Amino acid sequence: MGFVLWGFLTNFFTYETTKSVVVKSWSVGIINRIVQLLIITYFVGWVFIHEKAYQSSDTNIESSVMTKVKGFGYLQNQNQNENYQNRVMDVADYVSPPQGSGMFCIITKLIVTENQFQGRCTEVSTHSSACFSQCFLPLLSYAPGVITGACLKNSSESHGMCEMQGWCPAENDAIKIEPMDVNTFTIFIKNSIRFPLFNVTRGNFPPTMTANQIRNCKYHPEDNPLCPIFRVGDVLNYTGQNVTELLSRGGEIGINIQWECNLDLNIEKCIPKYSFTRLDAPFAKNAVSKGYNFRFAKYFKTENGTEFRTLHKAFAIRFDVMVTGKAGKFNTIPTMINLVAAFSSIGLGAVLCDIILLNFLKGAAQYKAKKFEEVLLFMAQQHVLYKSHHYQQHK
Amino acid sequence: MGFVLWGFLTNFFTYETTKSVVVKSWSVGIINRIVQLLIITYFVGWVFIHEKAYQSSDTNIESSVMTKVKGFGYLQNQNQNENYQNRVMDVADYVSPPQGSGMFCIITKLIVTENQFQGRCTEVSTHSSACFSQCFLPLLSYAPGVITGACLKNSSESHGMCEMQGWCPAENDAIKIEPMDVNTFTIFIKNSIRFPLFNVTRGNFPPTMTANQIRNCKYHPEDNPLCPIFRVGDVLNYTGQNVTELLSRGGEIGINIQWECNLDLNIEKCIPKYSFTRLDAPFAKNAVSKGYNFRFAKYFKTENGTEFRTLHKAFAIRFDVMVTGKAGKFNTIPTMINLVAAFSSIGLGAVLCDIILLNFLKGAAQYKAKKFEEVLLFMAQQHVLYKSHHYQQHK
Amino acid sequence: MGFVLWGFLTNFFTYETTKSVVVKSWSVGIINRIVQLLIITYFVGWVFIHEKAYQSSDTNIESSVMTKVKGFGYLQNQNQNENYQNRVMDVADYVSPPQGSGMFCIITKLIVTENQFQGRCTEVSTHSSACFSQCFLPLLSYAPGVITGACLKNSSESHGMCEMQGWCPAENDAIKIEPMDVNTFTIFIKNSIRFPLFNVTRGNFPPTMTANQIRNCKYHPEDNPLCPIFRVGDVLNYTGQNVTELLSRGGEIGINIQWECNLDLNIEKCIPKYSFTRLDAPFAKNAVSKGYNFRFAKYFKTENGTEFRTLHKAFAIRFDVMVTGKAGKFNTIPTMINLVAAFSSIGLGAVLCDIILLNFLKGAAQYKAKKFEEVLLFMAQQHVLYKSHHYQQHK
Repeated sequence: MGFVLWGFLTNFFTYETTKSVVVKSWSVGIINRIVQLLIITYFVGWVFIHEKAYQSSDTNIESSVMTKVKGFGYLQNQNQNENYQNRVMDVADYVSPPQGSGMFCIITKLIVTENQFQGRCTEVSTHSSACFSQCFLPLLSYAPGVITGACLKNSSESHGMCEMQGWCPAENDAIKIEPMDVNTFTIFIKNSIRFPLFNVTRGNFPPTMTANQIRNCKYHPEDNPLCPIFRVGDVLNYTGQNVTELLSRGGEIGINIQWECNLDLNIEKCIPKYSFTRLDAPFAKNAVSKGYNFRFAKYFKTENGTEFRTLHKAFAIRFDVMVTGKAGKFNTIPTMINLVAAFSSIGLGAVLCDIILLNFLKGAAQYKAKKFEEVLLFMAQQHVLYKSHHYQQHK
Repeated sequence: MGFVLWGFLTNFFTYETTKSVVVKSWSVGIINRIVQLLIITYFVGWVFIHEKAYQSSDTNIESSVMTKVKGFGYLQNQNQNENYQNRVMDVADYVSPPQGSGMFCIITKLIVTENQFQGRCTEVSTHSSACFSQCFLPLLSYAPGVITGACLKNSSESHGMCEMQGWCPAENDAIKIEPMDVNTFTIFIKNSIRFPLFNVTRGNFPPTMTANQIRNCKYHPEDNPLCPIFRVGDVLNYTGQNVTELLSRGGEIGINIQWECNLDLNIEKCIPKYSFTRLDAPFAKNAVSKGYNFRFAKYFKTENGTEFRTLHKAFAIRFDVMVTGKAGKFNTIPTMINLVAAFSSIGLGAVLCDIILLNFLKGAAQYKAKKFEEVLLFMAQQHVLYKSHHYQQHK
Repeated sequence: MGFVLWGFLTNFFTYETTKSVVVKSWSVGIINRIVQLLIITYFVGWVFIHEKAYQSSDTNIESSVMTKVKGFGYLQNQNQNENYQNRVMDVADYVSPPQGSGMFCIITKLIVTENQFQGRCTEVSTHSSACFSQCFLPLLSYAPGVITGACLKNSSESHGMCEMQGWCPAENDAIKIEPMDVNTFTIFIKNSIRFPLFNVTRGNFPPTMTANQIRNCKYHPEDNPLCPIFRVGDVLNYTGQNVTELLSRGGEIGINIQWECNLDLNIEKCIPKYSFTRLDAPFAKNAVSKGYNFRFAKYFKTENGTEFRTLHKAFAIRFDVMVTGKAGKFNTIPTMINLVAAFSSIGLGAVLCDIILLNFLKGAAQYKAKKFEEVLLFMAQQHVLYKSHHYQQHK
């Protein structure tokens, strides 16, 4: 019994290692070391230092954005109506929605159609449609109401216009108006983020900034990259687009906040980087739906209780604050996997050397004999060949 | 000195490789090659070709969505009030919020409570609550105002109704109305995305599409998979839900835009795929909170300046445009890690062959003798055993 | 021909394995096994069991949130105007935006400026600015309108006030009012998620919950962790912030829904975990922009058609429902990579043993002779040395 256990223990506590052949040759030795050097350089320089393969990363950022716009503008209007003549617009008028979330619009131009009541009227003849041919089409897509099929003719006109049912009078959006100047407006952005994997929380401006510093700064990519206050005119310029056209037709601007954090370094270096793009750039070549606009209505009631509305076609610049981020921190698992890959790759370098040794070197045959020992077990010839082989080896 | 350096150099430029035993045996040879073939097939077919393990991937998509709804509907209403009788609703009336973001609601049914003033009145007795028992409960959750505790009795009624304070008269939402037909409405979706890791920007319709093509197309999964205009009726049908119920109770529909991009191929093949789901599907079995509705108010003022409001309980179909994506591109690090894993796995295949060779084959003992060379260093028996072992081996 | 093929086949179906040296030594054997044990423990315990490295994971969660607030509050107001005296506020009044998305504000305090008309008036002198020095600055940032540069003096005052153009009278936001008590309000959250990689869809409350159970429960982290109804007072308390200050100045609260799903287990265990944080916490040390407020206006018309508005400065608690998640499921590729890393690491353990064997053990020389076989191919000395080496070995 004790003997069996002893046998088991001596068998268990053994150490098995590969038997090596050491080749002392200048050419192979140098090739071997150069290959190893290249592999090590690649791993140290690229994989570990540049690509930071020793870190696990979290791109699943959690973000909350609060925005606040400031500024006043003069709204030009097509109407002679005193209501909209050179009106001073403030934040409550031109920012929509008002809650200050990451997506907000600054209205630059308003086509206002006042005093619309439900009823029947002619559509505005921007398309100069002859009644007889088109008024029977159901739901003309460009019509501002349901086409009834009837044709309304003025005594002076020869072809008349389609009658529509809906909010009357119809909007006439073919009017040209100058957009409001929004260049001097400022946007304040408060962004707090968290990397859930590492439980790291950061804000987009440092806690050491005083209230006064924040209020009086303006963002500048080099001079003031951490100031959270952006001049609208600057933002539009940074996108490299035609600002006049943007203001006039509307557009979608992306304010990108990028967090690239190496959590192995000082957390204070985990700061945001802003970039500005025109979001509808991929559609630049398409003629359709250039710009950005939307319609909304304000509802009123007459004394006798009938509802009427003012329709607004608002051309706006929509700002989307988009937060992306990536945090990396040392983690044993990717480190180990990449270390193993590194060591194994060095091993694979030996394959190259073997090929050279076995085929292209003077001592190839002799090296082959040293490296390989044959055991012949092919059934048919087994006995004989093995003998002869054995014999040759020990000869 | 020169001699030491020479010694160092000859030691440094050596090449060390493992000594191998080559077994020439049909059975083990065939097993070895089959195992290798299986491992190579798995790696080439599954890991590299199917799972594209040679790519690094970016799922952290950056997306901006712009939507625009078109169409007119007739709103049915419970009131005899002329204001809401067969009213034609346009986009400014039924889309909320109006800004055309990725989340928007199309209102299908409105329960309107006009001319609400702050004051005291009876709650609507949809719950036929007897005054004496329930009017003293604070904040009855279903009440449309604060329950004062008082009981208001009509002469004709025996039990009366609770008095409430708030906006009066109270809303009666137990009314049945037909929903508006929104099937013919269309949704235009403009989606531009970016994969920040690879800095690739794409739009959801090709720049070669002309304005006319876009305006006149309708999305169809097979015939027109890239058209960005969706018929609401089609979208509802694609979800496989009961459309009548959806329109009547409201619901949440997810319009999923999936970007699956292989950036090693032509960038033109990086196109979106749309799918449509009912988002509250996980709650289908729960009886609570079926459908989707929200309340909003329009505020008015009487001549003498008292504010009153019209309360709207809006049943709506909420559309959430959700963009997900994954881009893959060749990268050396995952390629190398998987190659190393592949080569190492082939090496592990040898373990199986070794087990067969060492245990189940005719020449096992002979193979064992060839593969293993023993060095005995156990302290107690070291000297003697080593000698005998040495002797046996060289016998 | 047949012979060549036969030769090729016998060469192809061979099996090559490394020749091993088995060292029977207590010290090295024990060290070897201990090193192996440590490596195996690390891989099994940390890499596979704790870090679940056998799973591929999806953090790219797709989520849709629906919220509904319930409750009534009494709004205190600065005005003697009957409109706002002890007004009962309901959901349509205090929730903004009304659509019930993942981001919504509960208004706790309203500074109301009624009957604003476009015109010219003095700004409210909260800054007691002397006309002569500041009225000529363009666009004073704190002014509620465009400063015209004129100075308006009352007969009684010595320095007067700047004249501004815009909505008059100007807002005076320096008034102190008590916030509305929102603690008893409740928030119902419906969250449905999908992990696109695994196509798993889940809802934030179990389908077995009856309508009655859901209506009557209140969320509690331990007693009722799956109830989707949250008391606002509780949520504010969970953040650990000063609730009185939050209500009075407004704030941003994050309601975090975390999905941590192991899809190898029963899918029923894939449930959400809620946590509550104050989102502007990273800015706690900054004096600027504490709290949360926004401005919006209601528009009215006089009988003769002039538009006027009521400006609201709303202090609100903004709730951001943020959904994060991670799902893991067994996948062959990470399993294989980590297994290979594990086996390779065990192999690397041998390096340590080799160092001990070759340098610190009694039998080192003898072990060295066994492990290494030399082939000398250095050009200069090649012939002679090889001979002598050969001779020594076979001596």
